[in-house]
Amino acid sequence: MYNPQLNRHGELIHLLSTEGLPARILRQILDKAAGYVAAGEAGEKKHADLAGKTVFNLFFENSTRTRTTFEIAQKRLSADVHSLNIQASSTAKGETLLDTIHNLEAMGADMFVVRHAESGAPFLIAKHVKPGVAVVNAGDGRHAHPTQALLDMYTIRHFKGDFQNLTVAIVGDILHSRVARSQIHALTTLGCPEVRVIGPKTLLPRDVEQLGVRVFHDLQQGLQGVDVVIALRLQNERMNGALLPSANEFNQFYGLSREKLALAKPDAIVMHPGPMNRGVEIDSAVADGQQSVILDQVTFGIAVRMAVMSMLSEARA
Amino acid sequence: MYNPQLNRHGELIHLLSTEGLPARILRQILDKAAGYVAAGEAGEKKHADLAGKTVFNLFFENSTRTRTTFEIAQKRLSADVHSLNIQASSTAKGETLLDTIHNLEAMGADMFVVRHAESGAPFLIAKHVKPGVAVVNAGDGRHAHPTQALLDMYTIRHFKGDFQNLTVAIVGDILHSRVARSQIHALTTLGCPEVRVIGPKTLLPRDVEQLGVRVFHDLQQGLQGVDVVIALRLQNERMNGALLPSANEFNQFYGLSREKLALAKPDAIVMHPGPMNRGVEIDSAVADGQQSVILDQVTFGIAVRMAVMSMLSEARA
Amino acid sequence: MYNPQLNRHGELIHLLSTEGLPARILRQILDKAAGYVAAGEAGEKKHADLAGKTVFNLFFENSTRTRTTFEIAQKRLSADVHSLNIQASSTAKGETLLDTIHNLEAMGADMFVVRHAESGAPFLIAKHVKPGVAVVNAGDGRHAHPTQALLDMYTIRHFKGDFQNLTVAIVGDILHSRVARSQIHALTTLGCPEVRVIGPKTLLPRDVEQLGVRVFHDLQQGLQGVDVVIALRLQNERMNGALLPSANEFNQFYGLSREKLALAKPDAIVMHPGPMNRGVEIDSAVADGQQSVILDQVTFGIAVRMAVMSMLSEARA
Repeated sequence: MYNPQLNRHGELIHLLSTEGLPARILRQILDKAAGYVAAGEAGEKKHADLAGKTVFNLFFENSTRTRTTFEIAQKRLSADVHSLNIQASSTAKGETLLDTIHNLEAMGADMFVVRHAESGAPFLIAKHVKPGVAVVNAGDGRHAHPTQALLDMYTIRHFKGDFQNLTVAIVGDILHSRVARSQIHALTTLGCPEVRVIGPKTLLPRDVEQLGVRVFHDLQQGLQGVDVVIALRLQNERMNGALLPSANEFNQFYGLSREKLALAKPDAIVMHPGPMNRGVEIDSAVADGQQSVILDQVTFGIAVRMAVMSMLSEARA
Repeated sequence: MYNPQLNRHGELIHLLSTEGLPARILRQILDKAAGYVAAGEAGEKKHADLAGKTVFNLFFENSTRTRTTFEIAQKRLSADVHSLNIQASSTAKGETLLDTIHNLEAMGADMFVVRHAESGAPFLIAKHVKPGVAVVNAGDGRHAHPTQALLDMYTIRHFKGDFQNLTVAIVGDILHSRVARSQIHALTTLGCPEVRVIGPKTLLPRDVEQLGVRVFHDLQQGLQGVDVVIALRLQNERMNGALLPSANEFNQFYGLSREKLALAKPDAIVMHPGPMNRGVEIDSAVADGQQSVILDQVTFGIAVRMAVMSMLSEARA
Repeated sequence: MYNPQLNRHGELIHLLSTEGLPARILRQILDKAAGYVAAGEAGEKKHADLAGKTVFNLFFENSTRTRTTFEIAQKRLSADVHSLNIQASSTAKGETLLDTIHNLEAMGADMFVVRHAESGAPFLIAKHVKPGVAVVNAGDGRHAHPTQALLDMYTIRHFKGDFQNLTVAIVGDILHSRVARSQIHALTTLGCPEVRVIGPKTLLPRDVEQLGVRVFHDLQQGLQGVDVVIALRLQNERMNGALLPSANEFNQFYGLSREKLALAKPDAIVMHPGPMNRGVEIDSAVADGQQSVILDQVTFGIAVRMAVMSMLSEARA
């Protein structure tokens, strides 16, 4: 079966989605990232993997946070980094997306990191670039955010060893979350036996059970005996329906408090993709508590993005 | 005669305009650029020509595209690069242009790349900088855009060998185009025997014939037997008169279609400085067609800018 | 006494204010800066002091000028540089200041350079970062701007040799000036016997005499026999009271003209932190005159910032 993310040697040539990535590739990314984490702890942050390479961060949707993590990872790999705010560029003069891409390719681009409000935009770009040019999806619409999911996998593996016996609960606004979809695909591929999604019907996609997850509408029930709790950000800015809960209501029923967390396993870890709405989807006592590994996620995120980009640069054309 | 672009050794110390540059310098730039193109094709994109040098891109007028090409060229030459959006800087606090320049000089600037809405601004700056500090004009008003013209010369020479027997046609909005003026000066200096400009009276400067060109108002007539067709961007944003054609009218009479292009020589090449208005000054069938060298222009543009900046950094103070 | 700027070895770990810094540290900064100035004059601008280090410039208040000087200094020290416009970032999504800091720390930040409209913000950040992470105050509210004061000390020492026999006059809007406060503390610590402040009552802080300065409301009187005159920028954008002088009135009574400057010692130097309001706090004849060392300040400012950041990176955790 054709997989746009792999070449005929089975090497990663684009990172567009965790859906369709074999476990072998996922583990290769996590292993490579572990090398960067170890080097960083030993005081060796800088590497030459992308020396002489030209990387463009194309953010059609603003995200200082994600853009910064990619830029840090790129500079640690010694790339030449160019970040473009595309609203302000030639597309405003009527140039099409693909003209922009072909122009940047002609300028010698080796890699595009793309964030776009429309689902599928990074796939479209990957379909049209020349062999040897790599595309990384840094979040497209409600569709996918694979590097976030991969750093979450790294974090889980770091604290829990493996995925074979874990129960993982994803809590909150699944409907608007590209992160949740990417997490579910990655967890399933890596052999996690039980993935739960917990949220009100209005914040769950209709087809969610087809993803192979157990659905809970009651947080207390859903948290029973889980090893990993992932609280999602309440995407206030994406919610514009009258049927959606207020932040207060959401916190009462689905906000992660110390009391509710006590229903999970005693050694359960708490994760959040950030930035947090403290007092909405997560209480500060939990966010800053002993079970929180939220800042570890951030640290691992740099290493995981380095691993992905290094692997892409090594793939045969 | 005094030439602000050359020192007493005849070396390039500023690039302000193609007007007044001797053929010797133009050819030196093209030859040096050819070296970078060859190195790039051999996988060697990074050079040390500007290592330890501090370059400021001063964009008083926004242009992501041109700024990005300069930044790429500068990073490939290992410069320390600083790009300033001058609207947002101290000039807003009442600092004059020359105070800004003198301050940046005091910070150790080695080179300024300047885009400005007012014709002549880069000349003013070049007049006031210290010996050893270079100025590159990245487009000033309607006056000049020498690096664009130089990359066009590179492209023509690459595909046509030399300029001695060529007929080159520049089509469209000559009036508002700093690119056209710079192209005409460069072509004439390099020995091109016939340069044609084609456009409606309202989009041609009154003094255009004094530049040594043949003027055509009919595209079909003007394209007969030409070797090179350069379509200019219709500068919608600069046009605010009632007598100007609409985009539709323009396309009908001056838009480059496959049928009209057939009037040129069979091996004629088609160029455009970008970004294109597809369906206005150029049809997609031509832009993406076999005779189009538009993306080659982009590639050569990086090498030509590298060549210019490297030469400037080598000139004796 | 606890000093947040020094570790138990007496090494500089944060630069938050010149207040509380011992003369030993101030002199160490100036000496180290002198090394970079000498290297720069010998054509050696680039150093490896911060190679592999990740530096964040966090500008919660816009300042292209100060940000650029820090970026130049950081790149000359080979740091990986990330400049964030914080208005546009996650804080807009409700993330708190300390969450932002902790996230950037988790990404591997080694140093934060902070400009903030609120006095004390850099202290708050310094209090919460991990050991080994350094904070540089690049201007906080009306409170302090220590790198500006240090470059001023460098400039005075460069032209006057030492501080022991000097009379220094600071003229203008002391009330809104974080620069003036930082200068007074540094001058006093370095042994300057007489610091004068000159300005209208409405532009002097009520407690100004407690800083150990002589107060003058008459410029002519205050300038008599001084060795150094520092004209401050009239912070128009900070003044919103009805009792404040107009720019014209200010110039008449407190603007530095050639005639008024003649009252100072014949070899007095004139300084200004920039950007200047020509014709308001300083006339062009003075700003561009023989006694002006204003552009030297800018040059030394890069070296002083390099010295500070290099020392911070060397301190033991």
